[in-house]
Amino acid sequence: MPSSLRFLTAARRCEIDDLQHLAQTAVLVRVCARLIHELQRERGVSNLYLGSGGARFVGARSVQLAETDRVLAELRTAFESLDARPEGVPQGSRLFSRLAYAFQGLDALPTLRARIDALAWDTERATNAYIRLVSAWLAVVFEAADRASDPEVSRLLVALFNLMQGKEFAGQERACGAALFSAGRADGMRRQRLLHLIESQERCLQVFADFAGPASAAQLRQNLAPDMAAELERMRRLVAGSADGDTLDTALSLPWFEHCTVRMDAMKQIEDQLAEELLALCERRTAAARAELQDHLDISGQLDTGTGSTAFFDAPEAPPANQHGMGPRLEGSILELVQAQARRLQTMADELDTARASLNERKLIERAKGLLMAHRQLSEDEAHKTLRTMAMNQNRRLVDVAEALLSMAAVLPPRT
Amino acid sequence: MPSSLRFLTAARRCEIDDLQHLAQTAVLVRVCARLIHELQRERGVSNLYLGSGGARFVGARSVQLAETDRVLAELRTAFESLDARPEGVPQGSRLFSRLAYAFQGLDALPTLRARIDALAWDTERATNAYIRLVSAWLAVVFEAADRASDPEVSRLLVALFNLMQGKEFAGQERACGAALFSAGRADGMRRQRLLHLIESQERCLQVFADFAGPASAAQLRQNLAPDMAAELERMRRLVAGSADGDTLDTALSLPWFEHCTVRMDAMKQIEDQLAEELLALCERRTAAARAELQDHLDISGQLDTGTGSTAFFDAPEAPPANQHGMGPRLEGSILELVQAQARRLQTMADELDTARASLNERKLIERAKGLLMAHRQLSEDEAHKTLRTMAMNQNRRLVDVAEALLSMAAVLPPRT
Repeated sequence: MPSSLRFLTAARRCEIDDLQHLAQTAVLVRVCARLIHELQRERGVSNLYLGSGGARFVGARSVQLAETDRVLAELRTAFESLDARPEGVPQGSRLFSRLAYAFQGLDALPTLRARIDALAWDTERATNAYIRLVSAWLAVVFEAADRASDPEVSRLLVALFNLMQGKEFAGQERACGAALFSAGRADGMRRQRLLHLIESQERCLQVFADFAGPASAAQLRQNLAPDMAAELERMRRLVAGSADGDTLDTALSLPWFEHCTVRMDAMKQIEDQLAEELLALCERRTAAARAELQDHLDISGQLDTGTGSTAFFDAPEAPPANQHGMGPRLEGSILELVQAQARRLQTMADELDTARASLNERKLIERAKGLLMAHRQLSEDEAHKTLRTMAMNQNRRLVDVAEALLSMAAVLPPRT
Repeated sequence: MPSSLRFLTAARRCEIDDLQHLAQTAVLVRVCARLIHELQRERGVSNLYLGSGGARFVGARSVQLAETDRVLAELRTAFESLDARPEGVPQGSRLFSRLAYAFQGLDALPTLRARIDALAWDTERATNAYIRLVSAWLAVVFEAADRASDPEVSRLLVALFNLMQGKEFAGQERACGAALFSAGRADGMRRQRLLHLIESQERCLQVFADFAGPASAAQLRQNLAPDMAAELERMRRLVAGSADGDTLDTALSLPWFEHCTVRMDAMKQIEDQLAEELLALCERRTAAARAELQDHLDISGQLDTGTGSTAFFDAPEAPPANQHGMGPRLEGSILELVQAQARRLQTMADELDTARASLNERKLIERAKGLLMAHRQLSEDEAHKTLRTMAMNQNRRLVDVAEALLSMAAVLPPRT
């Protein structure tokens, strides 16, 4: 077999390998999504428990803790197989590093629960602890989305990540609003934070809609727009329209919480569907790639190797991709096959870039935080708060502030 | 061992695996560079042979063909090991696809030589054939540079690729100028092409200088600036200052060729050094990563697992990277280790982005070509010529024209 044909086959085999890795990733992402959902529920019921001074929601919380633990056990089992053979995960250092951090969070979960049991932490501190835990696991899903090498799978992972991130913003909105209504008093900082959470949420859901395809997007809109949603919007407006020190109806605290929960559960439905769709897509793509490899092997023996001809020098370097892929009846030379594959991979790379571009926003924010940390000797939390405050004060999106900051990097003096 | 520690170790192991792949790539890049150099020499001497109507340079050409064949045999041996286990190359489909195309070119080389033997092809056609062959192998090196996951290695690969690409522009300049002087008559198209080649060359050498480090950059400047260079500049000026139809001194044809060859050989020296440096760097980085893994394993057993503490929730999410890396005497908790690694990987990713950004220029041009091919039903060659003509007419860089074209993509009507 000439080298060119062997490498053509190798390229196909690599694609299949990559798709198999993606299928494995999809299984892990599904269980991450489930864990995050349980942690969000645990955060919610723990806040209710703390808010009641430990008097109520004891049973509901204990049911929820057991449910989280059940999913946690599943997650540990799922990750054990990955754990066993790191060499099977190409360029996996970032993914594993995220996982190491995320598992650190899980190790600390019993302590967090004990603090809540003992009413030693207030709602805000407990909320922040759960936010950090969830954020560590969302970072794992982000990394998985950023690594995907197949454009279709990448699009779906980007959609799923944004839905999950949007749902987490909804969860933070629930906690923030519940704190406002419980306190019975409007508070400028919290109000601004709530509005920011709503805006961030909507941006995530927009990216989700862009990448998930019209059916899922329509279904989410339908899920989010029943009568309950109108009531939530009314309560959101109460907060948005309040001025510092205004009285808020404490009786709205629980309805607010419940309406937000309904909203999150509606998102969860689509999330589950998307996670299943992701798995099915990986399997479909792998099966298709295998079939194509077989076709390729079947026909490649019968092809004109092109040796002795000057086709290489005369042919267009890479003709536009054959829209119908490489069917079993394809005729012609190896050169045509090679060119068709090159064009197909180029198209895939372009599509992949498009899907990944939407992840860059988050990366810019991370980088701007890094810059603040290095130049101002801030912790990550402080850096994030600084960015958020800048964004709120300037009424700009976080990513715009991050970008402006990065573009000024060259002129920022290092602080000693 | 807790999961977080296991994944921390897995992240390190992945880095080592990636570095080993890079070391393998570095060996292949070195032999690609040698092959390209021989093909450039073969192009040069074949042009002289064709230019003399087959009367001269017969012996020199036959010596060169034997030399090319010797390197070719080495290259085939080097690639056979890669060929045997495609699954060892993560996300390698694009690399393999490039290789399949590049080997197609080598398969067609005997036919090209036969056409030249028989004086059946003129200088221009033969030159274009060699240009295409070299470009196919440069694309392999480009892909290798684009895949590198270590920022230091990536910088060196970017430097090497740009030096190789710059040398190829110098080779094309040699052929273009030789054709001009041989013809004895100035020609607007060829003159513009020559000026464009000089400009492209200088841009490549600038990127090389940016990424290769001051020592290599200084050495290249020194290599390129002996007395010979002044003479080359004088001849360049002769062409640049000529108007359509002006007479050019045909006696300058051979001196031009020789001066250009000296220039290319000077670049080749640095190219060889850089290729060796690349290999040494990969080995050094692998050894360092192994040592760090050992340190990591040695100390990780003695660490406070942090379970039972709330450090995860209280600590800054990821403190600035420890500039001194992870020494054997590092004390503290797994959490600190995890955070240090996350910050280190973040810094590496940022540096990697910087190195890769310089490759985007080429990608933009490829994408613009793809757009032209799809919308105007052009072949790749035609698309490239269209872009080049637009750039020359507008006196803009190829990449700027490509970018402008891509930004207009949305409004370009598809041509049916």
